[in-house]
Amino acid sequence: MSTRQQLVSEIGEFGLIDRVNTDMIADGLHVVKGIGDDCAVVRTADENSFQLFTTDMLVESVHFTTLMKDEDVGYKAIICSVSDIAAMGGTPQNCLISLGIPGTLEVDRIERLYLGMKQACRQYAINIIGGDTVRSPKEIIINVAMTGIVNSNKIVYRSGAGVGDLVLVSGSLGLSSIGLRLLQKNIIPTPDSEAFFIKHCRPQARVELGQKLAEHGATAMNDISDGLASELNEIAVSSLAGILIDEQLIPVAKISLAIQSLLDKSPTQYALYGGEDYELVFTMSRANYTLLDQTTRAAITVIGEVTDKFSGVRMQTDAGQIIELKSRGYNHFCD
Amino acid sequence: MSTRQQLVSEIGEFGLIDRVNTDMIADGLHVVKGIGDDCAVVRTADENSFQLFTTDMLVESVHFTTLMKDEDVGYKAIICSVSDIAAMGGTPQNCLISLGIPGTLEVDRIERLYLGMKQACRQYAINIIGGDTVRSPKEIIINVAMTGIVNSNKIVYRSGAGVGDLVLVSGSLGLSSIGLRLLQKNIIPTPDSEAFFIKHCRPQARVELGQKLAEHGATAMNDISDGLASELNEIAVSSLAGILIDEQLIPVAKISLAIQSLLDKSPTQYALYGGEDYELVFTMSRANYTLLDQTTRAAITVIGEVTDKFSGVRMQTDAGQIIELKSRGYNHFCD
Repeated sequence: MSTRQQLVSEIGEFGLIDRVNTDMIADGLHVVKGIGDDCAVVRTADENSFQLFTTDMLVESVHFTTLMKDEDVGYKAIICSVSDIAAMGGTPQNCLISLGIPGTLEVDRIERLYLGMKQACRQYAINIIGGDTVRSPKEIIINVAMTGIVNSNKIVYRSGAGVGDLVLVSGSLGLSSIGLRLLQKNIIPTPDSEAFFIKHCRPQARVELGQKLAEHGATAMNDISDGLASELNEIAVSSLAGILIDEQLIPVAKISLAIQSLLDKSPTQYALYGGEDYELVFTMSRANYTLLDQTTRAAITVIGEVTDKFSGVRMQTDAGQIIELKSRGYNHFCD
Repeated sequence: MSTRQQLVSEIGEFGLIDRVNTDMIADGLHVVKGIGDDCAVVRTADENSFQLFTTDMLVESVHFTTLMKDEDVGYKAIICSVSDIAAMGGTPQNCLISLGIPGTLEVDRIERLYLGMKQACRQYAINIIGGDTVRSPKEIIINVAMTGIVNSNKIVYRSGAGVGDLVLVSGSLGLSSIGLRLLQKNIIPTPDSEAFFIKHCRPQARVELGQKLAEHGATAMNDISDGLASELNEIAVSSLAGILIDEQLIPVAKISLAIQSLLDKSPTQYALYGGEDYELVFTMSRANYTLLDQTTRAAITVIGEVTDKFSGVRMQTDAGQIIELKSRGYNHFCD
């Protein structure tokens, strides 16, 4: 009797992680948090500090194409990991860069990739302490492994959202994926559309904001790399709570309206499912929210609240309906 | 005027590293050693300990093929990094695993890859604390980033070889690349040849030996991942010294003789240029060598000495000639 083998594309990233995620930890006392948050968390010799670890692999034609400049690809490869550290309230410190490159690639292109990586590292005061450089048959492959440090009393996990907490996001959402759409359509940047290209090619990681929110009692936090819907679901599931957001409150850039004729979906759809904005989504008690300073409050937006009336994530639409917001089962293994 | 762009294959891994290796370090006080040794070395809150970092990327069809079982590929991916930590006298602690996999791959194969990685991690008491899982268009890609810990007073770099020191290696060399040769020729393992397959598919990293040598004053150390000639050259260049070895003293497995008809080169050539043995090559004063215990001395072999009479690496051949041993300019970017 032979049964067909199950394929990776059929179970997706999270199915795969579930399948292999056993027997990972040899020394449980030393590891505070393994797989299952933006970063792994490990004890240090200083009991007031935890060390953070994150890694991101980017493969050409899957995560980036030659539509983006090599400098921008390099810059963004670093930002992915910095943003994971920001989402725990931490400070990035060191990174290791592995590159897989075809022998037929021009040396100039690698220098430009590195130029972008170094620009991002300088901006966030990160040391590039090592790496590996190997041949890849066809695609450029970039793997960044990054460490950070965080106050062990202030660290914010995904799992701490409490009933009654506010749900908030930083910045405006959906700009990066709109920027990608414009790149793919070969649109030339104009004063109206420039912000989308910048957000897609040179996103900023919210390190200082993440630290401030951690100091002021954020209860759960994620960076928005896979779209707001997916990140909210991770917080809801990890925190064993429900989240209700209001569509009207989601901050989408007003300038989206000026270029709406170029888009195939509403700005809200880009915010919910677009990804790569590298903003923060977090929960916080009302009391702590009111104690935040003006500058911080100007940088964030309340979009909903944490509830025990249901599990998962729901949204009150502009039309007044309550709908369930799924992660869209985002599957890296299907085209 | 247009000049042809230089290609990665024309300058190789080391040429490429030279080209980009500037402006890597933002905080020099914190980083003890960046790029240029088996591991990066970083200060910790405990002044008696340094933290070690290493990363290795393996790409299917370049670093492994389906000639090897998936479990063995996974096992060996971990050993590469453990061996780098052993070469500093350290103890491995945590790792992050990034996998790039085609959507069409059977889930079973990923489970077997992980099985091998977990077996290696359990053996060396390493925690798998995180990772990333992404789609790759065609090849399986594995990136391992690993941390370790080392006594800051005992750590061994590449650069400490002193004139008059002995040059030594652990184990027997060349077995792994002979094993690869047998695999490629579809030879079925026999009692005579089994050891070569085991060395290629399930190499051991010399963690305990590395620690013992560090405690007993090894002055420079490398793991043998790229062949003895290449590793000796790294020590000679980093230590600004010359190394003279004796061909007759290089430990090649006696069992190589039994299968010599299957080989296209002499066992010594496999030892010098074959790679992936994951043994240690190191230097140590004669005085410290004589203080080593019997068990340790049985596991290592003196093959030469450090000199100030020339720079680089030379070998006295069986025929009595002195020849220069080049790294062979091993270039990952040419087939």
